[in-house]
Amino acid sequence: MIKRQAVIAIGACAVLIVSTLQADEGMWTFDNPPRQQWRERYQFEPSNAWLDHLRLSSIRLIDGGSGGGSASFVSPNGLILTNQHVAAGQLQKLSTATRDLVRDGYYAATRDAELKCPDLEANVLVSFEDVTRRVQDAVEPGASDAAAAAARRSTIATIEKESFDKTGLRSDVVTLYSGGEYWLYRYKKYTDIRLVFAPEEQIAYFGGDYDNFVFPRHDLDIAFLRAYENGRPARTERFLRWSEKGATDGEFIVLSGLPGSTDRLLTMTQITYQRDIGNPLQCRVWESRRHTLAAYGQSNAEAARQAAGTIRSLENSLKRLVGQQQGLENPRILARKAEEDKALRAKVAADATWQQQYASAWDRIDELYRDVPARATRLAFSTLSPSRLGGYATTLVRYEQEIKKASDTRLEEFRDSRLDALKFALFSTAPVYPAMEEAILTGWLEEARRALGPDDPFVKAALHGREPGQVAREAIVGTGLADVATRKTMLERGVATSSDPLIVLARRIDPIARELRDWQDSTLRSVEASAGQQIAAARFAAYGKSVYPDATFTLRLGYGRVLGYEEDTTLVPWKTTFYGLFDRAESFGEKPPFDLPARWKAKRDRLALATPLNFAYTGDTIGGNSGSPIVNRAGELIGLNFDSNQQKLPNRYVYIDESEGSRAIAVHSAAILEALTKMYDAKELVQEVAPGR
Amino acid sequence: MIKRQAVIAIGACAVLIVSTLQADEGMWTFDNPPRQQWRERYQFEPSNAWLDHLRLSSIRLIDGGSGGGSASFVSPNGLILTNQHVAAGQLQKLSTATRDLVRDGYYAATRDAELKCPDLEANVLVSFEDVTRRVQDAVEPGASDAAAAAARRSTIATIEKESFDKTGLRSDVVTLYSGGEYWLYRYKKYTDIRLVFAPEEQIAYFGGDYDNFVFPRHDLDIAFLRAYENGRPARTERFLRWSEKGATDGEFIVLSGLPGSTDRLLTMTQITYQRDIGNPLQCRVWESRRHTLAAYGQSNAEAARQAAGTIRSLENSLKRLVGQQQGLENPRILARKAEEDKALRAKVAADATWQQQYASAWDRIDELYRDVPARATRLAFSTLSPSRLGGYATTLVRYEQEIKKASDTRLEEFRDSRLDALKFALFSTAPVYPAMEEAILTGWLEEARRALGPDDPFVKAALHGREPGQVAREAIVGTGLADVATRKTMLERGVATSSDPLIVLARRIDPIARELRDWQDSTLRSVEASAGQQIAAARFAAYGKSVYPDATFTLRLGYGRVLGYEEDTTLVPWKTTFYGLFDRAESFGEKPPFDLPARWKAKRDRLALATPLNFAYTGDTIGGNSGSPIVNRAGELIGLNFDSNQQKLPNRYVYIDESEGSRAIAVHSAAILEALTKMYDAKELVQEVAPGR
Repeated sequence: MIKRQAVIAIGACAVLIVSTLQADEGMWTFDNPPRQQWRERYQFEPSNAWLDHLRLSSIRLIDGGSGGGSASFVSPNGLILTNQHVAAGQLQKLSTATRDLVRDGYYAATRDAELKCPDLEANVLVSFEDVTRRVQDAVEPGASDAAAAAARRSTIATIEKESFDKTGLRSDVVTLYSGGEYWLYRYKKYTDIRLVFAPEEQIAYFGGDYDNFVFPRHDLDIAFLRAYENGRPARTERFLRWSEKGATDGEFIVLSGLPGSTDRLLTMTQITYQRDIGNPLQCRVWESRRHTLAAYGQSNAEAARQAAGTIRSLENSLKRLVGQQQGLENPRILARKAEEDKALRAKVAADATWQQQYASAWDRIDELYRDVPARATRLAFSTLSPSRLGGYATTLVRYEQEIKKASDTRLEEFRDSRLDALKFALFSTAPVYPAMEEAILTGWLEEARRALGPDDPFVKAALHGREPGQVAREAIVGTGLADVATRKTMLERGVATSSDPLIVLARRIDPIARELRDWQDSTLRSVEASAGQQIAAARFAAYGKSVYPDATFTLRLGYGRVLGYEEDTTLVPWKTTFYGLFDRAESFGEKPPFDLPARWKAKRDRLALATPLNFAYTGDTIGGNSGSPIVNRAGELIGLNFDSNQQKLPNRYVYIDESEGSRAIAVHSAAILEALTKMYDAKELVQEVAPGR
Repeated sequence: MIKRQAVIAIGACAVLIVSTLQADEGMWTFDNPPRQQWRERYQFEPSNAWLDHLRLSSIRLIDGGSGGGSASFVSPNGLILTNQHVAAGQLQKLSTATRDLVRDGYYAATRDAELKCPDLEANVLVSFEDVTRRVQDAVEPGASDAAAAAARRSTIATIEKESFDKTGLRSDVVTLYSGGEYWLYRYKKYTDIRLVFAPEEQIAYFGGDYDNFVFPRHDLDIAFLRAYENGRPARTERFLRWSEKGATDGEFIVLSGLPGSTDRLLTMTQITYQRDIGNPLQCRVWESRRHTLAAYGQSNAEAARQAAGTIRSLENSLKRLVGQQQGLENPRILARKAEEDKALRAKVAADATWQQQYASAWDRIDELYRDVPARATRLAFSTLSPSRLGGYATTLVRYEQEIKKASDTRLEEFRDSRLDALKFALFSTAPVYPAMEEAILTGWLEEARRALGPDDPFVKAALHGREPGQVAREAIVGTGLADVATRKTMLERGVATSSDPLIVLARRIDPIARELRDWQDSTLRSVEASAGQQIAAARFAAYGKSVYPDATFTLRLGYGRVLGYEEDTTLVPWKTTFYGLFDRAESFGEKPPFDLPARWKAKRDRLALATPLNFAYTGDTIGGNSGSPIVNRAGELIGLNFDSNQQKLPNRYVYIDESEGSRAIAVHSAAILEALTKMYDAKELVQEVAPGR
């Protein structure tokens, strides 16, 4: 018999039994796994070899130079498992008006049929090294924030270059604990990634935006890719084996992946800014872009296909943002943040040395944020980047200027150690849709004019007294940037005198955008970094390394349990089944987005309907963790993270305890095999990941 | 493609599309159907014959003299359809330690096998007549509240007696619009009701208390009974035919049933009292009784069986009460009530005549409620009625006193016109469980002592200086009231000198309980009735008969649409299917209360899993509507009401608009036939309700 955790009650007859769950909190770096929590709560004491194996099986995917997600190797032949929605950018780029891999999915039964992704990079973290002392020592005592930031940037660039020259490995110095620590991460990099399998988006994303961030959930959000080296499948001796049963109720789990970004160390001033200005502004930017694309997509079926991927991604971002904002608007959550902030400041104030070293940080942030609101809207809108071609143009204009400087004084993305990645993205062979580009740029310039006013420097420079539609039309129709060869030539020869109208536009707005970028780098980021470093140091002093750093799209360990929860007055089970998928489809009469792909209706009776489909679990995840492998104590794959529920969204700013119903959501490993076998007749793939089944 | 009704948005980018649904509000009497709303919103214009047919097919069920629910005739041979949970009291009474009809269900394939219910009464409303003038004219101008109440009581008793003597029909004068109208309702009464079919409780109440007041829902909450007359199945020419398809998405529906009680005309003073004192006190009473029974039920399996029905009923009441209370604690809902109250008072104040006639009502209620809190706890606890035998004892003690008075001056339940019903309940052959009675009485007296203190008159009279356990043990072990023949003899011969220890106990506490009852009848109820009548008259004056009266467990019409809704950020479909039932069972690993009866597992593959199981619809329902038939425009049965969702619960005090997601929940007619056919092999029953299918 299931016992209630709590009895809702009223007035004098309140009988509240508070649950005493402990929080499965933290996005831990592999140098500092939460061994104590594992041992004490779960009697789990993995060997270093266990941890190394998980790390070396884990993958960071980077899509088109930005964005991406998590993944893992699941066979010795370079086979990669991730989410369909992580691979969706590549699926879109591999699609044409007559071959829609997003809608129809894909299965390469043979190696020959595997399709090369235009601009997908996979990274495996092969080593990490603490370089905190070297970076921090580079700053002269008494240096200004700007000078300190420049010194750190320069040292970081040097470390990265040294490492790359020595090892040939992608070498990134990552900032942790807001500058409390710096680590050199070296990655083995794969750039020849091929598509093996993706299901129809309708089953990967069943329920669409409605069911996003919702549990119970019924999505087969999976894709298989393969890493190639020298034209052959990569030999990957580190890979995750497929569990026999998959996730079970109450089971302890570990996940390994790349949480993108959290803001848990912000001061109350920063938090309040996000709530009142930052988030609403971000919402406006995304909502405007979504609106433009939706209008474009309505023109015809092919336009709808072109726009669908970005719309899905923006809807996802918007829904997540709204959930985060609801957290900030929740007085209880804000009060918890305020308490944390107050407790730390009290500890600092109680120690004269700490007071002298750290206390000014809060005041400096307060002072900085008096200037931020006035610049926030300009920073958000003074760019061409919503248009892909506009982004290329900006890169080309800046490249020519930056490349002349010493590497360590360039804008971050133009440093020597990053040039490979920059070129990989710039020379992407992904198709360009000029009509969509024109619509995007028009909509963007219109919104920028509304937001900034006609007299704003960016608006004036961009429009030159004309209408957004004219400017965008002329720039996109006349540009040659849709052609990869043209971009290569321009990069080699420079664009200072180019009369390409999009280049001309990018040149016109660049001084304005640069001025803002300079302020952002030299003031906003440097004060935040330096004050953040002070606060992080105060936290170290107060709490030691018992805490974990904010997420930075670097590899992390999470852990928790497979677990249902209470919601309103009933229980949400830990899993869903294929029964539930068909229930939801039937209950909506298969109206989109609750319709099923044709094969799922035709072959329905083949399925063992009681097979677990999705499951909920506790653990600390955020965007970027999509595609993270979930393993059991034996290190076997039992599920694939792909989402979280609504309750979890405010976790950008504070860990939402699992007793409040916050859960991550995964595809169950058994559902993957069952679907591959019964729905897709993908015997070869099943044999590769689970030989003999 | 399903379009969103509203986009959740934040800050400057708010894009709120307010839904413009119109409210399907009202529990309308058959003399005043909402013809205008039907015509304007749904182009529905039923004939009088259509309405008569629905009314004469509708049934009020009364279980053991109190409680009950709604039902309908579904064959010409007296076959009745209602909910399993409405029939559950009788199922419990027909069960023994070795035959558990609640747990195992029942099917009588032949008439001979149909089981007579011990104390179930069925009423059909055959006529109604406005007697407002006669009742109101009975009050002398300038009479005190108490005198006015007495005059009305006396006139009502006379009207009821005249009607009964003339027609032999059960004749009740019902008070509508808080005394704005009085109607004589005549009922054809059936007292020989037999059990034909009930499913296992585990499928009727799948998900237990957790899923109660929750949608999506997966319950086969049905039972079939049969009315007999003179030992033969009643000939019922008025009955509802079974629809071919059952409820469909968006369909207009009408329901006919007996909403028990609403409090929508309360003043703010009364509402605030309910929120702060009334509801918390009621919660304490029910929670205490539930607690006692749960503890008793843990002693052994047979005790658990005996207690289960009442526990289920108390849990249901508690969950509903909490939902109602949440409504009162919702500032938006309370503000709406306050606005309604204010608007009416403003209309009254704006007219000198109205002001003189009506305005004092609010002040009188305010004055009355200054006295209520001090008496509330005493009124709640100064009774033996939680014990069934205690209730019999009180009835016997009072009967002897009351029967000597003129009928119209007796306590309401002892008037001539009610004596049949009183005896029907008192002479019930339902089994009595002394050990459970003792546990109930002990727990009750303990809680009364805690609530009232040891010096309270009731507590002192009941305990006489001893412990609750001693008092209860002595009274229950020594009483003969468990025997029906003894109760009959006592009623005939009187109990004034009886030494039966439970009678002695009832005699001891009766003067105290009577004093409170007198205050309740002569002050609380009479001021509320008289002030309520003033306010109702003010409402008539202001709004005419465009409004409907509060629910009073008399037959009402409701209407609405079959309709899903938005919840949080996703959609709830209008229906569930058998797929969903098996999903939920599997997802919980069949842990109770999410386990399935054995037959449902064994015969699972026979079912057409896509058959609709439950559905959600708009319409104005409340407790008492359980078992209400839902019909389509053709008057055919398409569903059976059995519950509502959480959002709907505050509708005791105010109609919760369907745009806020409030829904009633029904069993789909197709699920009933599918289950009867495939799971229960109940061919005879299917042939009777849906010949040829």
